[in-house]
Amino acid sequence: MKRLTHIDARGEANMVDVSLKPVTLRTAVARGEIRLCKTTLDLIESQAVAKGNVLASARLAGILAAKKTGELIPLCHPLSLTHCEVNFEVPQARDRIVIIASAKIAAQTGVEMEALTAVSIAALTIYDMCKAVDRTMEIGGIKLLLKTKRGSGSNAPQGPNRNSRRS
Amino acid sequence: MKRLTHIDARGEANMVDVSLKPVTLRTAVARGEIRLCKTTLDLIESQAVAKGNVLASARLAGILAAKKTGELIPLCHPLSLTHCEVNFEVPQARDRIVIIASAKIAAQTGVEMEALTAVSIAALTIYDMCKAVDRTMEIGGIKLLLKTKRGSGSNAPQGPNRNSRRS
Amino acid sequence: MKRLTHIDARGEANMVDVSLKPVTLRTAVARGEIRLCKTTLDLIESQAVAKGNVLASARLAGILAAKKTGELIPLCHPLSLTHCEVNFEVPQARDRIVIIASAKIAAQTGVEMEALTAVSIAALTIYDMCKAVDRTMEIGGIKLLLKTKRGSGSNAPQGPNRNSRRS
Amino acid sequence: MKRLTHIDARGEANMVDVSLKPVTLRTAVARGEIRLCKTTLDLIESQAVAKGNVLASARLAGILAAKKTGELIPLCHPLSLTHCEVNFEVPQARDRIVIIASAKIAAQTGVEMEALTAVSIAALTIYDMCKAVDRTMEIGGIKLLLKTKRGSGSNAPQGPNRNSRRS
Amino acid sequence: MKRLTHIDARGEANMVDVSLKPVTLRTAVARGEIRLCKTTLDLIESQAVAKGNVLASARLAGILAAKKTGELIPLCHPLSLTHCEVNFEVPQARDRIVIIASAKIAAQTGVEMEALTAVSIAALTIYDMCKAVDRTMEIGGIKLLLKTKRGSGSNAPQGPNRNSRRS
Amino acid sequence: MKRLTHIDARGEANMVDVSLKPVTLRTAVARGEIRLCKTTLDLIESQAVAKGNVLASARLAGILAAKKTGELIPLCHPLSLTHCEVNFEVPQARDRIVIIASAKIAAQTGVEMEALTAVSIAALTIYDMCKAVDRTMEIGGIKLLLKTKRGSGSNAPQGPNRNSRRS
Repeated sequence: MKRLTHIDARGEANMVDVSLKPVTLRTAVARGEIRLCKTTLDLIESQAVAKGNVLASARLAGILAAKKTGELIPLCHPLSLTHCEVNFEVPQARDRIVIIASAKIAAQTGVEMEALTAVSIAALTIYDMCKAVDRTMEIGGIKLLLKTKRGSGSNAPQGPNRNSRRS
Repeated sequence: MKRLTHIDARGEANMVDVSLKPVTLRTAVARGEIRLCKTTLDLIESQAVAKGNVLASARLAGILAAKKTGELIPLCHPLSLTHCEVNFEVPQARDRIVIIASAKIAAQTGVEMEALTAVSIAALTIYDMCKAVDRTMEIGGIKLLLKTKRGSGSNAPQGPNRNSRRS
Repeated sequence: MKRLTHIDARGEANMVDVSLKPVTLRTAVARGEIRLCKTTLDLIESQAVAKGNVLASARLAGILAAKKTGELIPLCHPLSLTHCEVNFEVPQARDRIVIIASAKIAAQTGVEMEALTAVSIAALTIYDMCKAVDRTMEIGGIKLLLKTKRGSGSNAPQGPNRNSRRS
Repeated sequence: MKRLTHIDARGEANMVDVSLKPVTLRTAVARGEIRLCKTTLDLIESQAVAKGNVLASARLAGILAAKKTGELIPLCHPLSLTHCEVNFEVPQARDRIVIIASAKIAAQTGVEMEALTAVSIAALTIYDMCKAVDRTMEIGGIKLLLKTKRGSGSNAPQGPNRNSRRS
Repeated sequence: MKRLTHIDARGEANMVDVSLKPVTLRTAVARGEIRLCKTTLDLIESQAVAKGNVLASARLAGILAAKKTGELIPLCHPLSLTHCEVNFEVPQARDRIVIIASAKIAAQTGVEMEALTAVSIAALTIYDMCKAVDRTMEIGGIKLLLKTKRGSGSNAPQGPNRNSRRS
Repeated sequence: MKRLTHIDARGEANMVDVSLKPVTLRTAVARGEIRLCKTTLDLIESQAVAKGNVLASARLAGILAAKKTGELIPLCHPLSLTHCEVNFEVPQARDRIVIIASAKIAAQTGVEMEALTAVSIAALTIYDMCKAVDRTMEIGGIKLLLKTKRGSGSNAPQGPNRNSRRS
């Protein structure tokens, strides 16, 4: 039976010891989405500056949160990210904003939590800025899209729920 | 046309001025979920102590994050929460863990972002602790369940896409 | 001889005790500026979205920093700001960006440090985003413009260096 | 036309990707000043212990802030500084305190923002500790004095405003 | 049998709900000590400026930590302290530095954790600054000395270990 | 006469410059204890889940604090820990909980402050969770047990107070 890596021999929560792992270049890409009313999306987009601001605010909040991942997720290793990027896409149905975040570092451990944290906080920031005009918003579909190590190959997540991959 | 409250006259991002609003007792309840493999849930539950630890870790991480909401969400007001609680439920289908968080304060502004942040970080913590054994996890269904003011009545969100509005 | 309020009877650094002071509505407005090359200003403005982003980033960074003032300035009281706003102006000479920040709260102590911190970090953020194209930038002119208490009257800073007041 | 490095192809704010840059020894020295009344300076200096405390407080606040640069400046890379130093000088005119901060690290990116942040927060700390006795204070002249890479040569800031260099 | 207040009906960790408690003036005084070699104490004291700096650094670190208590202790309520003070005493035996910290606030919950956190971090700061010359240091005797509410009376800690009270 | 390493030539507080020190594998183990009533210990242990929670909360709080050491202790270098572990032992006398924390990293400086900080905050967390039922608690015996570099040998603390070593 597989074991939960964060649980030690006595079943206690534990930071995984990566002290002796080699330093390799790690990247991770995660996505998530916030479903909202078309009129909310119109509001965001119709005000040229405002749009920049809602999404620009969410982008910065996501990047700042990625840098705090080790402080937010108790057993995450603190990492000095060398890159983080947060982008947004609006599908044709115009019923949601898709958030895609990537993180990169040369380290002894991966950066998927950083990418997922960036997505989550970016989504919450959009929620916060639009909550006065839209009470139907829902955040979901937060998952890992891609994870690579060394550039030597990708370890994409595998399983029933994976149905997308970032081009 | 309705306006986004965080966007000022010139369309710039802006903290809403609540300086003159009355202090009232505010509560908010939010929920979210993390979908995972049944075997992951078994792993979490089968190790009596470990279970306590995965969920106990997520609970604490959620509470700690709620206290940091004003630091994570750029335009949120910093608040001195007087209560925060994070709980977990496993539905019969055993394909997910449902996370429910509530926040409370007597203040000039509501605490929905605190409850939503607690849910999001609790979910990410579960993800982090289980990611070595389950690559299918997905976080979703994050939304506000209930929001009250003064205890004088509740403004619960209703229905899947309810587009009603806070009075 | 006046005494430094943060130095106690033995001359040690000390947080001023405001426990028994009345809670009143406090506001403060501060300003500062970053001098830069005209071509840098052109670059910022000519890219419609980019402009929004440099200044939008600086605005958010300033607001976030204001909320952290009590964490950054050792003897400042931590405060739950009820409002913070950061704005920018470009004088006709086009040789600088002027940053104006205001903060508000009903509390036992004033918020000038919050306004000054917002200005300082907003300026540093502009510096950071433009430093690859402009090595002449200099940040200066950081001072308090206005400070009010209760709304019952203003306590503007007085002295030889005060030559402006925000309309 | 030069491009702003923090703005990506679409004009969005972006952390510069330094993942593949070589690790080299970086240093940066920045300066700034706080202008104040002679009597304030006298007050600071005349109380032997107090003086140590105002400047000692500002020094520590500056060092602590340098370590938080990646948290304060949205697009700055988080760095594990290996050295930071903050010093003060009083010019003969006795109308200001000059603050000089240096930062050092072996990393993929420079540390000028760390040095500038240390200067800014040290200045704000002096302001905070003296604001009850001096309302004329003004912070200014914040700029980079020196930046080196590898020790193989210095990249000093160049341009019309640069008129000093730290010996 | 008494119940642990932080454990709810199901035995889960829980922030105590103080939302409906009255706001009263709270104070707390805590103490602790760091035992060290006489020569270390001599070193600290013999360098007039240095002494100021070791203890001044510890004092500021303690005050800053008190303001972060709600961030460090998972189930503590975040509080906007209105006063915090850290002082040091050297007993005649000259084998230790005694640290005494007090905290104050008008709030719905007490501030003993703030005072205890200030003591602990001040002690660790002394340890850090002296660890290169003294490997025998030990931190201990950290306890609450006094706790008051409203000023209407004191709730001093009671029990076998309490043998001191701050005059 | 030995000099305090954190005090520079002028006697000012100073971060030690480790920029040119080699990167080696560092570990540190620290311990501390919280003395409490037997009935408090019974309470903690008798509630199967609760026990997990008091100690699980303290464990997480300790690990999170270790990651923040550079933020809490002014002159500590910020470090990206690769491992941190917090454990508890109850001696036969059942009058205290002993806390043992270890930290690990490949870096230019040691991690004893990280281990000591983890112990201190874990102890304060136990204090916080039990303070409603036990007013006799006292935290003490906080010291370094072991410190190694490269694995090439151990530099254990030496001196009169060292009487234990972790097996």
